[in-house]
Amino acid sequence: MTDSWVNSAEGLGRDLHLEVSGQGGRRAALTGALREAVRGGRLAPGTRLPPYRSLAADLGMARNTVADAYAELVAEGWLTARQGSGTRVADRTPSAPPPAPAATPAAPPPAYDLRQGQPHTGSFPRAAWVAAARRALTAAPNDAFGPGDPQGRIELRRALAGYLARARGVRTSPERIVVCSGFAGGLRLLSTLHAVRRAPLAVESYGLPFHRALLDRAGLRTLPLSVDARGADTSGLAATRARTVLLTPAHQFPTGVPLSPERRAAVVSWARSVGGLVLEDDYDGEFRYDRQPIGAVQGLDPERVAYLGSASKSLTPALRLGWMALPAHLVGAVVAAKGEREPTASALEQLTLAEFIESGAYDRHLRGMRQRYRRRRDQLTAALALHAPHVAATGIAAGLHAVLRLPPGTERSATRAAAFQSLALDPLSDFLHPAAPAPATPQDGLVVGYAAAPDHTFTAALEALCRALPPPPGD
Amino acid sequence: MTDSWVNSAEGLGRDLHLEVSGQGGRRAALTGALREAVRGGRLAPGTRLPPYRSLAADLGMARNTVADAYAELVAEGWLTARQGSGTRVADRTPSAPPPAPAATPAAPPPAYDLRQGQPHTGSFPRAAWVAAARRALTAAPNDAFGPGDPQGRIELRRALAGYLARARGVRTSPERIVVCSGFAGGLRLLSTLHAVRRAPLAVESYGLPFHRALLDRAGLRTLPLSVDARGADTSGLAATRARTVLLTPAHQFPTGVPLSPERRAAVVSWARSVGGLVLEDDYDGEFRYDRQPIGAVQGLDPERVAYLGSASKSLTPALRLGWMALPAHLVGAVVAAKGEREPTASALEQLTLAEFIESGAYDRHLRGMRQRYRRRRDQLTAALALHAPHVAATGIAAGLHAVLRLPPGTERSATRAAAFQSLALDPLSDFLHPAAPAPATPQDGLVVGYAAAPDHTFTAALEALCRALPPPPGD
Repeated sequence: MTDSWVNSAEGLGRDLHLEVSGQGGRRAALTGALREAVRGGRLAPGTRLPPYRSLAADLGMARNTVADAYAELVAEGWLTARQGSGTRVADRTPSAPPPAPAATPAAPPPAYDLRQGQPHTGSFPRAAWVAAARRALTAAPNDAFGPGDPQGRIELRRALAGYLARARGVRTSPERIVVCSGFAGGLRLLSTLHAVRRAPLAVESYGLPFHRALLDRAGLRTLPLSVDARGADTSGLAATRARTVLLTPAHQFPTGVPLSPERRAAVVSWARSVGGLVLEDDYDGEFRYDRQPIGAVQGLDPERVAYLGSASKSLTPALRLGWMALPAHLVGAVVAAKGEREPTASALEQLTLAEFIESGAYDRHLRGMRQRYRRRRDQLTAALALHAPHVAATGIAAGLHAVLRLPPGTERSATRAAAFQSLALDPLSDFLHPAAPAPATPQDGLVVGYAAAPDHTFTAALEALCRALPPPPGD
Repeated sequence: MTDSWVNSAEGLGRDLHLEVSGQGGRRAALTGALREAVRGGRLAPGTRLPPYRSLAADLGMARNTVADAYAELVAEGWLTARQGSGTRVADRTPSAPPPAPAATPAAPPPAYDLRQGQPHTGSFPRAAWVAAARRALTAAPNDAFGPGDPQGRIELRRALAGYLARARGVRTSPERIVVCSGFAGGLRLLSTLHAVRRAPLAVESYGLPFHRALLDRAGLRTLPLSVDARGADTSGLAATRARTVLLTPAHQFPTGVPLSPERRAAVVSWARSVGGLVLEDDYDGEFRYDRQPIGAVQGLDPERVAYLGSASKSLTPALRLGWMALPAHLVGAVVAAKGEREPTASALEQLTLAEFIESGAYDRHLRGMRQRYRRRRDQLTAALALHAPHVAATGIAAGLHAVLRLPPGTERSATRAAAFQSLALDPLSDFLHPAAPAPATPQDGLVVGYAAAPDHTFTAALEALCRALPPPPGD
């Protein structure tokens, strides 16, 4: 018996390869080495460990150090200690080291990516953002580092109320703004409201499948409104049971037309007459190239329109910050839907964005991006004029994408031809609501996002695009 | 008629108080002033506006500028323009400026706040955090500013895998870590899994009502496990239909005891035998004062334990960052539950936290906070020894709170006495599961959070606490 633990102690001493460096380091090294020995099977379940005095002597360590290490491993369940039976390796061996999950073989990324929805990642204003973070965090009161107000930091709500009034014609106040984590986060909150849930929700017949899926999961039925050259046909709302409508008035997504003045007036009039609600998705309202931006519908009636914006296109989707300017009667319910505290939006980044806006850095960034994106749009239209003059690009007055109108029946083959060029883009029909009636004339098209591609690939991406387009009719 | 618009133009010119400064500035000022005039009722619905040439002459502006401003306001729905009838104010007047929502009169905040759950906000390492943000954002690849990987940035998952192994005895790999927005965000994701939904979920009979409410809303039934001096009684699991159990092994919340070695082994053994799952809430595992931290149960079987941690106690709840070290077979389902992209956790802060950990700043911060919190705990126990030696403080070896054990039947009166001192704290019974059987002996107590109070109020808060405690029995 004496022999057994002496051998064991020597074995342990040899096996453990202890690096001794300071008192805390020694104990940590010993516990780590013992854990590894148990995990690896070198110390089998039930194995009796040497008394701590012996192991201490063998390793040249203080007795207390070894006793503490034993106690720690007992507390963690690696060892058991019983009166009269000494310290042993616990019966239930921990499992073998975890295997890495089988990696699903990913398809190689496309050489060129003209899918819509993303800003130019290389243009994120890193230095200006960090400078704003430094100023914001230096100036922040201590309570900024406590649990957050679910409505959002007052500093950001103030900055947004001013910015949205100035740049987007939104009429609101800090008390009516709720911060959220991007447009989808805001829509998810709104979809919990009775005002939204009590009836079907009208949406544009063209839109993001991702948003429709979100509403589906929330248990909301969506009714498609047809979209034409004047935007969504809001005159059709009165004939439906809908009481809420989700629109992209500044730049219909993805067709790119602005909602016409008559239809803006009509949708507000409808909302007033039925006690309804307009959800305004202002996803890229900052980016209009040939004239001033079109102001938000919200300005026509702040009590009937909930305005949603985010930093995802204007700065980066990496931030996960969005905002809503709400009718006064909805503020309480939306804040309550977030729970007692802010569940997701970092207060530190809320403060940083507030400082970024107030310092003028946000306007500077947007001005620079407007120029950059306008140049890219011009490159796209120039390439089309040269190589595919029969293909019209629509929705190009604003935003980060265009729709290329194709001859009827050519959309799928053009998408396949693009894939053959290792060019990713989305066919227009992917955005059509499944319940939308078939359009009178076929709407073949490609949605081309021109903002995100890295600079060094953009020209080649446009060339690949032109190669993928169908030839002129009659060719 | 001619007269009318001349007067109108002059009136407009007088009313608008245009500040002319540059071309863009002029048009923006004009559209803003016209919008305000319509909003304020100075231009009533149907009012005909002067032809743009006249207004331009009257205001000394370029004709194009005024024409563009009219067109913009027509596009926004403020004005209408019809052939032959000129430009008029739209019929549907925008509503009056929005009133601020009625502020609900808030109760005055307590003078002293010893509620549990929050770290010391004044200790957030602002400068070190901004320095880490600067290094992280400077070094980040461009793709960091694109749509995020729902599993989380690989830089953070690598940093966490190393940190958790070293500091918490967690056995994992970057592939098995999923980033989320705090513990609640992680629990919400896990509550969508079939593995969790298929059967009732066992919880500790003492715990956060907030977590139980989250599980309730997710449609999960919770079964309380009794809690005693060795932690939750995991030996009772086998008699239930539960297949998942949520535990706080390092420091039972709120009673403060660590889960005993036998029960650690028993819960892993149970999970193996029934194909079950242990959810390990390691909310304050970093803070242990009198010896080394107790390692995570997850280390005993990474395939049966999902480990959850967050920055909410260790750094600040303002960050909204948490993490899960998952069994390999759950990674795919949890990532899928987040959707195609990261819905909430900022990639920029993920990168910053990764750099904060890798640079050693996180360990330095935790060491400093451990000392600060230990001193506060010692102040609490010293105050009790002096003023209320009959009241035992339990659960004080770790964490940010203690439980003061009170004579039976005195909890409510002590809470009221505290409120009378303008001292906020939580009675122990507030944390009891509503379906838990009544304990054999009454468990009267107060949960005292000693970490968050500002330094200048802490001594006074302790004095108020001691005044609120019941007198010794027999007094």
